[in-house]
Amino acid sequence: MAEKVLIDCDPGIDDALALALAHGSPALDVVGITTVGGNVELGHTTRNALCLVDYYGMDVPVARGAGRPLVREPRTAADVHGETGLGGVVLPEPTTSRLSDRHAVDFLVDRLAAEPGEISLVAIGPLTNIALALRKEPRIVEWARRLVIMGGAYGRGNSTPAAEFNIHADPEAAAVVFGAPWRPVMIGLDLTHQARADAAVRAGFAGLGRLESELLTPCLDFYGEHAGRHHAGPAVHDACAVAHLIDPGLIETVPARVDVETHGRFTSGMTVTDFDAPVPNADVATVLDRDAFWSVVTEAFRNVARGMP
Amino acid sequence: MAEKVLIDCDPGIDDALALALAHGSPALDVVGITTVGGNVELGHTTRNALCLVDYYGMDVPVARGAGRPLVREPRTAADVHGETGLGGVVLPEPTTSRLSDRHAVDFLVDRLAAEPGEISLVAIGPLTNIALALRKEPRIVEWARRLVIMGGAYGRGNSTPAAEFNIHADPEAAAVVFGAPWRPVMIGLDLTHQARADAAVRAGFAGLGRLESELLTPCLDFYGEHAGRHHAGPAVHDACAVAHLIDPGLIETVPARVDVETHGRFTSGMTVTDFDAPVPNADVATVLDRDAFWSVVTEAFRNVARGMP
Amino acid sequence: MAEKVLIDCDPGIDDALALALAHGSPALDVVGITTVGGNVELGHTTRNALCLVDYYGMDVPVARGAGRPLVREPRTAADVHGETGLGGVVLPEPTTSRLSDRHAVDFLVDRLAAEPGEISLVAIGPLTNIALALRKEPRIVEWARRLVIMGGAYGRGNSTPAAEFNIHADPEAAAVVFGAPWRPVMIGLDLTHQARADAAVRAGFAGLGRLESELLTPCLDFYGEHAGRHHAGPAVHDACAVAHLIDPGLIETVPARVDVETHGRFTSGMTVTDFDAPVPNADVATVLDRDAFWSVVTEAFRNVARGMP
Amino acid sequence: MAEKVLIDCDPGIDDALALALAHGSPALDVVGITTVGGNVELGHTTRNALCLVDYYGMDVPVARGAGRPLVREPRTAADVHGETGLGGVVLPEPTTSRLSDRHAVDFLVDRLAAEPGEISLVAIGPLTNIALALRKEPRIVEWARRLVIMGGAYGRGNSTPAAEFNIHADPEAAAVVFGAPWRPVMIGLDLTHQARADAAVRAGFAGLGRLESELLTPCLDFYGEHAGRHHAGPAVHDACAVAHLIDPGLIETVPARVDVETHGRFTSGMTVTDFDAPVPNADVATVLDRDAFWSVVTEAFRNVARGMP
Repeated sequence: MAEKVLIDCDPGIDDALALALAHGSPALDVVGITTVGGNVELGHTTRNALCLVDYYGMDVPVARGAGRPLVREPRTAADVHGETGLGGVVLPEPTTSRLSDRHAVDFLVDRLAAEPGEISLVAIGPLTNIALALRKEPRIVEWARRLVIMGGAYGRGNSTPAAEFNIHADPEAAAVVFGAPWRPVMIGLDLTHQARADAAVRAGFAGLGRLESELLTPCLDFYGEHAGRHHAGPAVHDACAVAHLIDPGLIETVPARVDVETHGRFTSGMTVTDFDAPVPNADVATVLDRDAFWSVVTEAFRNVARGMP
Repeated sequence: MAEKVLIDCDPGIDDALALALAHGSPALDVVGITTVGGNVELGHTTRNALCLVDYYGMDVPVARGAGRPLVREPRTAADVHGETGLGGVVLPEPTTSRLSDRHAVDFLVDRLAAEPGEISLVAIGPLTNIALALRKEPRIVEWARRLVIMGGAYGRGNSTPAAEFNIHADPEAAAVVFGAPWRPVMIGLDLTHQARADAAVRAGFAGLGRLESELLTPCLDFYGEHAGRHHAGPAVHDACAVAHLIDPGLIETVPARVDVETHGRFTSGMTVTDFDAPVPNADVATVLDRDAFWSVVTEAFRNVARGMP
Repeated sequence: MAEKVLIDCDPGIDDALALALAHGSPALDVVGITTVGGNVELGHTTRNALCLVDYYGMDVPVARGAGRPLVREPRTAADVHGETGLGGVVLPEPTTSRLSDRHAVDFLVDRLAAEPGEISLVAIGPLTNIALALRKEPRIVEWARRLVIMGGAYGRGNSTPAAEFNIHADPEAAAVVFGAPWRPVMIGLDLTHQARADAAVRAGFAGLGRLESELLTPCLDFYGEHAGRHHAGPAVHDACAVAHLIDPGLIETVPARVDVETHGRFTSGMTVTDFDAPVPNADVATVLDRDAFWSVVTEAFRNVARGMP
Repeated sequence: MAEKVLIDCDPGIDDALALALAHGSPALDVVGITTVGGNVELGHTTRNALCLVDYYGMDVPVARGAGRPLVREPRTAADVHGETGLGGVVLPEPTTSRLSDRHAVDFLVDRLAAEPGEISLVAIGPLTNIALALRKEPRIVEWARRLVIMGGAYGRGNSTPAAEFNIHADPEAAAVVFGAPWRPVMIGLDLTHQARADAAVRAGFAGLGRLESELLTPCLDFYGEHAGRHHAGPAVHDACAVAHLIDPGLIETVPARVDVETHGRFTSGMTVTDFDAPVPNADVATVLDRDAFWSVVTEAFRNVARGMP
């Protein structure tokens, strides 16, 4: 039976791919999407989520969340994702509105409360919504089945030499989330930089029709040019977090203590990861099974392509 | 016509007096009470609020809020307020429950949204609920008529040499609240230390019957012994914030820029107050009209005493 | 017998007055002057010290010290002391050079080492030299007879709302000095703001001849206009530290724990003063005997005026 | 002609190897050794330096330096280097004392001043002495021919997940040194972890007689067991810095901006390294030519073994 999953996201190019992966995978049942300001502003991330849901043909409510970090001033990554968040891609206006009238924080809390132990949470944007939910209803730590976070790094960052974008965007929220008594899986840059959509991978997307021509190709082209310009292609960060939910065997993890730096002058938002700590608080992703990962992704994309309206 | 007011509090001895002052003043119409963890734990502050509402005969909903600070670990001041928050005073069990089924954050947001520009907010505990509300619904800065905060100091603190208790208990929340685009009045220790319930003041409470014998006297005795033991009697901090709402003429204020220190080793929670800043963000209380203040308080208490069930 | 004293300073207008006070007091024997960058740049403070020594007729070596803070970038207060440090006053070129060929740090260490327990140290600039000396030779804590510091405040600051100039200029040096195992007297703004050269005080300087017309009047006029413009006249901060050495009875002190904030965003350089700490590390000045202070100062100035070359 | 070099060190096992490498290399002429507290206490590092100089037969003065960090409390790594700093190795008492009567800071400053542009500086302990020298005499930045630092990392640390030992031991000193207007070479863990004394390397030390049996073998055995227990053998960190002076071709470097974190809760002492910064302030070591490195080291050790008294 498919695992129910709530996706908290800030689409964002790799968020778009992550949503497709989740929707196309038979192992997962997406029961809700919540949005947060991050890669681009909340207005854009929410609109993008609504467009993507409609475009993919997902029957899922979208709840709008926090527009700015828990404590700090907002900062986005429009240079990496384009002004509106999906590179140059303009999706059709949604024909049915799935926008919830509830705030993301309430949507998350109520949904988790409704089926304690049944629904997993995957967070692929700044952790503002999750932190707010924790402060409003601490019991979500017991209600969530699993929590997988795309964010952080135990090596070097990308927003700064020390910090990854999602954590750097809201360090205090991340400190709240990693400080809560649950056991998140941290899918950091160390892992996601192994998930580069290189030429061979992209060749495998041929035959996906409109999904490939309208979304995957333009998005990956844009992303490849703006997100670090690595010779092996752009890293599809967020999709890795969803992949871990689909099959934990795709990604090796190691227990570690993760502390989020909130006070440094040059290190704010760093996920300081101690693999020797006596009391770990997270499982940190280290090694990706590349071939298996891309098989799972490509197969899921095929399912999406087939079902698109 | 009386000004509608929402009171966010953590009773607490001086909160109890502040509630009495608000209830007894013809200038104010208390339309809701929200609770926060602070002087004592949230369970106690909520119970105390419910007991006080019933004891005073207030017909007001009480909504339970955040049990811990926005980012940090909780800390209370049970040494000052007693284990349960009202010194040794044990009030009767409430006969009718006015506990709202809504979270304080939602209660605040919805109440302010329902009557934009009509309702003032007085915050006399740590600012966690207000910060959470701001992050969930930034428009409350426009909807709130006035915001009066008991917290901080431009001189020395009381929790630490640098920080006052309410701000020290949740510096990040305070940073969010003072950083938002509204114009709070800061009623800090500089002002409240002018509001000491000395022998003359307390003599004025004689004749208030049960209110005096059951609540005022034991509370002030306990408070006087535990809150700094000042020869001139205990300072009724929170009541000053309510007094400012009743009559701004009771308290002089000066425009200033208030920044909340969140990063210091010895200064966390300090309200750094710059009276020369080019762009003030708050009005900071400086001088209390003592005689007028105690007249207003005593008169309000008399009204409460008369109306108690 | 006069107490031997080393003066570490950054003249500076009030430093100039402090040197005159020390020189003119029969209770003190100035055995050396060391300079530090502070109120103005090291080149100016050193030149000013040499000029003042010559002008007053002191037979004292001057050793040049650190030109910038221990860790941070330099900042001066030329707005308060004028570009060259003595308001507009231009003293004659020194006719004999008393500039030592030793660095201030070595001069201090060697002088203290030569007569352990005999020489007191008065520090009236940023504490860079003293901190460097401590790190080079920790035994100076035993060798110095007394240490009196003009710096800090237990109330509000002057460089920032939280920090006094000398400490704010080099917080890490101050942290080193207050953290060392000796027992400094802290003469902070709380005390020095009681030492304002008002009209009556300045009337007492009449009859001091050239000292009054060439130095005191122009310096105090400039200082009064630039240093906070207080109706009661400018505060002669540094002179208070020297006065404490002359007669401790002039200034009440209270034992306290002083911690220097080095990490705050808004509080860097604050001397956080805890009067209730179980283990005090300093004696903090609280109350000045104004009349006695100005008598001592005026009498010393008279002695200086008489002996000027 | 051999390059003159001053070595600032805290022996320490890998310091002992670095000294042997410098002494045994015809490319270098060691003109002085200064000691600092670090791996073990200053008393031990100074005694070890004196013993090693005598043991190797070096005719070099040793000047004792700072016993504790610029601002913070001291911390050592006696777990890695043994209580006295050389594992269990006990060298014979020196027969001639080469201990200078000058403090390391003065020794460094005067030596560099005596031959501006001629002498290089290699710093393989905490940077306290160098920072103190910079503050006492800023012109050393012009006088030093080259500066090579063993310290820091652009990846993960060893004292903490974020910080390498030498920098973590005195972050403020490191901030001063990297902030000064010279261009250090940073030999960090990223490089030194490529310099592991594995079985093949150690086989090459056979035939070095007493040097091998009395010093290299017991030191490397101890170090291998206590310094991270890496299957490939212990990393000889400090020797890499000396190797860079001997032949820059052994080590690739990349220009980068290095900022030392002094304010983090979990990241204090991290060398935050930005390879994309517009204005680099250091050259950061990235790749070691392992074979060439060990050839140089082994050859130098052979020279030392031959010349031992």
